[in-house]
Amino acid sequence: MIENRATTARDGASDPPRFGPPLMARLDALAAFTEVPGQLTRRYLTPAHLAAMRQVQAWMEEAGMRVRVDAVCNVLGRYEGRKAGAPALMLGSHIDSVVDAGKYDGNLGVLAAIAAVGELAGRGERLDHAIEVVAFGEEEGIRFPTHLLTSSALACTLEPAIFDVRDREGVSVREALANAGGDADAYRSCACERDGVAAYLELHIEQGPVLHDKGHAAAVVTAIDGAIRLIVTLHGFAGHAGTVPMGFRRDALAAAAEMIVAIERLGGSHADLVATVGRMDARPGAPNVIPGRVEFTVDMRSPHDAVRHRAQRELLALLRDIATRRRIEIETQIYQEIPATALDPGITTAVREAIAACGMDVLELSSGAGHDAMMMAKLCPAGMIFVRCKEGISHNPAEQITAADADVAVRVLLDTVRRLDRRFAAGA
Amino acid sequence: MIENRATTARDGASDPPRFGPPLMARLDALAAFTEVPGQLTRRYLTPAHLAAMRQVQAWMEEAGMRVRVDAVCNVLGRYEGRKAGAPALMLGSHIDSVVDAGKYDGNLGVLAAIAAVGELAGRGERLDHAIEVVAFGEEEGIRFPTHLLTSSALACTLEPAIFDVRDREGVSVREALANAGGDADAYRSCACERDGVAAYLELHIEQGPVLHDKGHAAAVVTAIDGAIRLIVTLHGFAGHAGTVPMGFRRDALAAAAEMIVAIERLGGSHADLVATVGRMDARPGAPNVIPGRVEFTVDMRSPHDAVRHRAQRELLALLRDIATRRRIEIETQIYQEIPATALDPGITTAVREAIAACGMDVLELSSGAGHDAMMMAKLCPAGMIFVRCKEGISHNPAEQITAADADVAVRVLLDTVRRLDRRFAAGA
Repeated sequence: MIENRATTARDGASDPPRFGPPLMARLDALAAFTEVPGQLTRRYLTPAHLAAMRQVQAWMEEAGMRVRVDAVCNVLGRYEGRKAGAPALMLGSHIDSVVDAGKYDGNLGVLAAIAAVGELAGRGERLDHAIEVVAFGEEEGIRFPTHLLTSSALACTLEPAIFDVRDREGVSVREALANAGGDADAYRSCACERDGVAAYLELHIEQGPVLHDKGHAAAVVTAIDGAIRLIVTLHGFAGHAGTVPMGFRRDALAAAAEMIVAIERLGGSHADLVATVGRMDARPGAPNVIPGRVEFTVDMRSPHDAVRHRAQRELLALLRDIATRRRIEIETQIYQEIPATALDPGITTAVREAIAACGMDVLELSSGAGHDAMMMAKLCPAGMIFVRCKEGISHNPAEQITAADADVAVRVLLDTVRRLDRRFAAGA
Repeated sequence: MIENRATTARDGASDPPRFGPPLMARLDALAAFTEVPGQLTRRYLTPAHLAAMRQVQAWMEEAGMRVRVDAVCNVLGRYEGRKAGAPALMLGSHIDSVVDAGKYDGNLGVLAAIAAVGELAGRGERLDHAIEVVAFGEEEGIRFPTHLLTSSALACTLEPAIFDVRDREGVSVREALANAGGDADAYRSCACERDGVAAYLELHIEQGPVLHDKGHAAAVVTAIDGAIRLIVTLHGFAGHAGTVPMGFRRDALAAAAEMIVAIERLGGSHADLVATVGRMDARPGAPNVIPGRVEFTVDMRSPHDAVRHRAQRELLALLRDIATRRRIEIETQIYQEIPATALDPGITTAVREAIAACGMDVLELSSGAGHDAMMMAKLCPAGMIFVRCKEGISHNPAEQITAADADVAVRVLLDTVRRLDRRFAAGA
């Protein structure tokens, strides 16, 4: 009898947690593959990434998978179904990281999938579908100005011009791939056959505070937010902080401040919208000079493109109004726009059922962050499961999950896979 | 007959402008002494500064002055009165500059004073007072973290620890002085005898837009603003721009934006107050990350210390309120506080009379910028005259005055000096 243990319908905790402790140990072990001792930094195609790939490959083989590394350095392990060559249920996430990252972002989804396959293999259980576990190589866009490069290769959406972009040291993706044993010119060989993949399912930490706040271990993800990103540049007039009376000023920073307050209010005007000013630069930037030029970014996201489009129109109108009233010149440049990704209703139903079967209340979330599932949704039905991370902290060494939640992760994933196997009956 | 010439009571223009054109030519010539070809950058004790000192010395001698360079590299020219050794009326300003400066900031006051003495010498006119023209070496605080160093040496307020501060290349003021032929250890020799200086009068460009806006060529300065400067540091919580709902956020930049709007409003709440946020830094500073830490400066100035003190209390209260409401930790650090300097009523009266005598309406201004006159006011009665600069632009290569206003500058200065000579009758 274990004392002080409260098991709630939301937590989904169970005794004994078979999957949690070994999965946590592997997450710790994988975190040792880093470019920078003492922190986790593992950018695409660095020696740390290549070493992590080899470790993942070893674990996949140990779990009964046949492993290959494709031309853009994805690691793919295949666990055959009852009949060899059956379409696959693909599970996975990424193993690259941001600088000074947490251990769970991406890695949890890969290692939980390996644990799920290991469980099937240990029980000698084969499904109608094969299971493929993929460890994507480039999701974070940290080393190169890229994003979801390696999942786009699988989803047949890769633009080969991306191989010529370079990192800060001047190394192109093409060169880095050649050094790593990959081959940019062979990128077409990475593409999945459409009828070879029945579904893609990604388990990932939430990277937000909602599960933590509501006390749920896991949630089904119904959509991935669309996003729009702008750079706003304001030209006022720099002047001496002492000699220019307030009424004479065209202060670009004061204008930006009024805009940021309005942008925050706009973001809060709809439950399915967020708006963020993340970067801000005021020039000349001296305490005794009225700023003459300010540049800042706006990032707005929503799972509903209509909500985001309406917010974008309101945003541009309010920026214009403030600029005009303050005699500030304004330029707005949209540098990125990504439509929302609806996740597959069949998969979300299976995830919902699996969460309920694990004894938990079902919580639905949209994903404010981008994931490889966005790219894979262009290839096949795609779904996602979110796992609680402490206080929603991510992209930070303080990123944390519990062993109990890691256990829930594997159980929900495994149960969902079995449900999907029946739902996407091979050849159906 | 000159066409298209409107002479107004405010402009003070006169035909022919005897002093303006040669003064403008000298200002152009002095601007050639620069560290950076193609722009005017002349920091304290650089070769450009030393060369400019030699040129100023030559012009002083040409105007009938006996010249010495003191231990901190001020250039002082003395034009004796009727009796040798009489107390001096001291005129001057600084000849160091900011980086990529205008030609008139500081230099105008020095060269206008030399022109005024040249006029007296040319007419063989001696006053009861001697006239001393000083070209201060360090007013801008650009090379070293100093301010008004060389006028503080004259005013007997210099703290010798300042000689140990270093520029970015690691050179101390002491070392730079030794290289320039000065001598830090001899700084006490720079100090003026209190009864050797009857008054200090500084003519300077306004560096603000009021004269330009109101169409006046010159104004009498009644006070130099006191100032307080703070660094405000906000600690919120960094997070993912997509995954953290608006209601969960502790966005340090949004908090700063609300504060900046409020600070601007506070600055506009009193005619004798300005408030500026000039420097702002938001971290981590990525478009897709909610800023967790923001640092910004506040600069508040007023000619009335009571107004500034009240504004400071309001400022701290409003910052605290906004931080508390947003669950943001706040630190405020006052790193500089300078009381207001009341200029001498006798001198301001003389300037007023001189402006009127030149046929102009009298406008009174306070100085929002600091000047050597602040330091000299600790030694003796001090006064200032402001001259219009185009659109108030200063600390900028676009800084501009007209030859007509340069002419007015010398005439007002000369007339004021004659009035002060009578007012501060030698030995009175």
